[in-house]
Amino acid sequence: MPAKTLPFDREQIEQIVADYPTPLHIYDERGIRQRMRDLRAAFAWNPGFLQCFAVKATPNPHIVQLLLEENSGADCSSLAELVLCERLGLRGEAITFTSNNTSVEEFEKAHELGAVINLDSPIHLPKIERLPSVPDILSFRFNPGPEKQGNVIIGDPKEAKFGCTREQILEGYRRCQAMGVRRFGLHTMVVSNELGLPSLLETARMMFELAAQLYAETGAAIEFINLGGGIGVPYRPDQAHPDLAELGEGVRRLYEEVLGPSGLNDAGPAPVQIMMENGRAITGPYGTLVTRVINVKETYKRYIGCDANMANLMRPGMYGAYHHISVLGREDAPPVQTADVVGALCENNDKFAIDRPLPEVRVGDLLAIHDAGAHGHSMGFQYNGRLRSAELLLKEDGSVQQIRRAETLDDYFATVEFPEPAVSVQ
Amino acid sequence: MPAKTLPFDREQIEQIVADYPTPLHIYDERGIRQRMRDLRAAFAWNPGFLQCFAVKATPNPHIVQLLLEENSGADCSSLAELVLCERLGLRGEAITFTSNNTSVEEFEKAHELGAVINLDSPIHLPKIERLPSVPDILSFRFNPGPEKQGNVIIGDPKEAKFGCTREQILEGYRRCQAMGVRRFGLHTMVVSNELGLPSLLETARMMFELAAQLYAETGAAIEFINLGGGIGVPYRPDQAHPDLAELGEGVRRLYEEVLGPSGLNDAGPAPVQIMMENGRAITGPYGTLVTRVINVKETYKRYIGCDANMANLMRPGMYGAYHHISVLGREDAPPVQTADVVGALCENNDKFAIDRPLPEVRVGDLLAIHDAGAHGHSMGFQYNGRLRSAELLLKEDGSVQQIRRAETLDDYFATVEFPEPAVSVQ
Repeated sequence: MPAKTLPFDREQIEQIVADYPTPLHIYDERGIRQRMRDLRAAFAWNPGFLQCFAVKATPNPHIVQLLLEENSGADCSSLAELVLCERLGLRGEAITFTSNNTSVEEFEKAHELGAVINLDSPIHLPKIERLPSVPDILSFRFNPGPEKQGNVIIGDPKEAKFGCTREQILEGYRRCQAMGVRRFGLHTMVVSNELGLPSLLETARMMFELAAQLYAETGAAIEFINLGGGIGVPYRPDQAHPDLAELGEGVRRLYEEVLGPSGLNDAGPAPVQIMMENGRAITGPYGTLVTRVINVKETYKRYIGCDANMANLMRPGMYGAYHHISVLGREDAPPVQTADVVGALCENNDKFAIDRPLPEVRVGDLLAIHDAGAHGHSMGFQYNGRLRSAELLLKEDGSVQQIRRAETLDDYFATVEFPEPAVSVQ
Repeated sequence: MPAKTLPFDREQIEQIVADYPTPLHIYDERGIRQRMRDLRAAFAWNPGFLQCFAVKATPNPHIVQLLLEENSGADCSSLAELVLCERLGLRGEAITFTSNNTSVEEFEKAHELGAVINLDSPIHLPKIERLPSVPDILSFRFNPGPEKQGNVIIGDPKEAKFGCTREQILEGYRRCQAMGVRRFGLHTMVVSNELGLPSLLETARMMFELAAQLYAETGAAIEFINLGGGIGVPYRPDQAHPDLAELGEGVRRLYEEVLGPSGLNDAGPAPVQIMMENGRAITGPYGTLVTRVINVKETYKRYIGCDANMANLMRPGMYGAYHHISVLGREDAPPVQTADVVGALCENNDKFAIDRPLPEVRVGDLLAIHDAGAHGHSMGFQYNGRLRSAELLLKEDGSVQQIRRAETLDDYFATVEFPEPAVSVQ
């Protein structure tokens, strides 16, 4: 099986943790930038191609900024994410706003920033009508329902709360035209963490066909088609990244085959623009959770206890997700045991791995939990009074920058005022 | 089926949300105090009975303080929870420290406060030996492994990372005796959210038998037996609270039957003390998440979107847990629809209910999500840039006190410094 690699070795990380205590998240600037370049290269055939980074995956302003430097846009799902972009100086159509069950306040902020709004449903049009001006461009999120199977992560589309039906989009476009909206897009997000090209390409075909239908029936000159995210991460060592060049080429063929005859490419100011909103695929493999082993216990099985917990990475506990674990200094040693790798929460799902084959592990060893760069730090909670760790950036020149400090107890107690001390019992 | 009740009606809550915007958590002081009194009454036969509130369930200092006023102790699982108690003026054996995969720093704090340490395993004894002084009293957490079945929430004991084996406790007591520890306790926590008395009583029998065995084999005069928590909450309207009086009486019978002949009650300074560390059972039913309906959408099914989300209550999303939902003003109206009640996260598990029969629901209605008083606010995350809500206390005199303010965007960005604004793309 292909080895999982790390951008540092034990000696380097021991130097880093001398300055920044474990647990910590560390991101690989080189890897993130290269990944973004590879994705753009795969779609270079489409002059307007725009990948908007799903901020929710890694909502650190420094990570978002380095992606903006690589000509990424930003996809936001909430007021906080819109404000994050605003504070980075981003405005206009490099921001997409893709949300569901949306509040008026969020639409107002997205509109103020000039973001492209991907509407979850025409039910939101009354809120759009009350904005200070008619948006220049609008898009709807398509949910194919029983027309398409989702995958294990995103689930069955007809059970998904996201998006609207074909008929609702048709109705939505007509209502938007009547409101004076002049420019249109189309959006979907039906698979998540998908490693297979067929499912990703099937999504592209579905969307191109829908765009052709919508153009034919409404005359809306659809300017962009947002294929959503969904490009997966090879979390397991025997998995491989989807081939981005092959994906780009496959989408190009479908674009020519389906959109070519539709007339859409001549209807707008430019050929139809492909957009994507990947998060996981861009940062997931390029972030590592580094944690120190603090206890090893044998009861009815072996438990390796580390100083990280679900506050730092919730995917294994919440979804049963696999994250590869390397013992630093013994990255290539063969397994000699199976063990559960656990945190300190009083919840039995606070486990990074269950029955995992591992080499020798001693108290004091450092573990690297791979592919924690997306939906890692951002999903952390403070349950059991646990604090969220620092985030570091391993820069291209080999230096390390702290891009988020670790939380303190003062942060934990920031929203409460203590009452006068109680009288102790007894 | 028995109706789920609320300590307020629509009119009262509309007045409250005029001052404190939704979503919000509101706790019923009267209910919490009464529940604590009922539990103490059920165990009044045991002169030393001490219920230590599991702080993790509702780690709000005001909630903990009102329980201290009701002669509760506090059970902590982490440094932050110990510091919370310290800042309330609590010290000594009214604090228990029950943790797993514990750090040196946590043991030091627990020892400094004079807390009773429930050791997860003898592997921690070297850390205990390095404390400034030998603890006066120590206890071990028993995990019966294949001897006992757990329940659905806590899982199979032999797959649980908590506690240690019978042999390890025997070894642990002997090592503690050699270290100069003079007083001993015994602890377990094998079921969680259990509504049936047989399982709770079976735990008591198991522990009493183990205590008798340990006394016989080591001579350790076990002063307390901590039965853990585990008393469940009737989340569904057709469920009922376990009868606390019957539980107390059942434990008393086992205490007499099993501990009586053991000689343990005459070995220590007082009869063996029963301890518990319930959290959910004390505050769970007496907290409500109040949220406003902001969207209603029909696609392949009906979605009722509210302004709360998994940041406020994660149990349905993480565990598939049932929380009853009342439409305020229509509490007793018969169901006329089934719908999913959802939040705004871009995660399809951000649902408070799936296919739930509900009366009519309109945008603007207030929903009460029941039994959110434990493991509700405390498990909230900030994923998708969502903020955690305020906590209010509905006092016995009918007034309302804010006991935690809602988070702001400044809180959300507190641990990052923004880089210089990037140049916008395009």
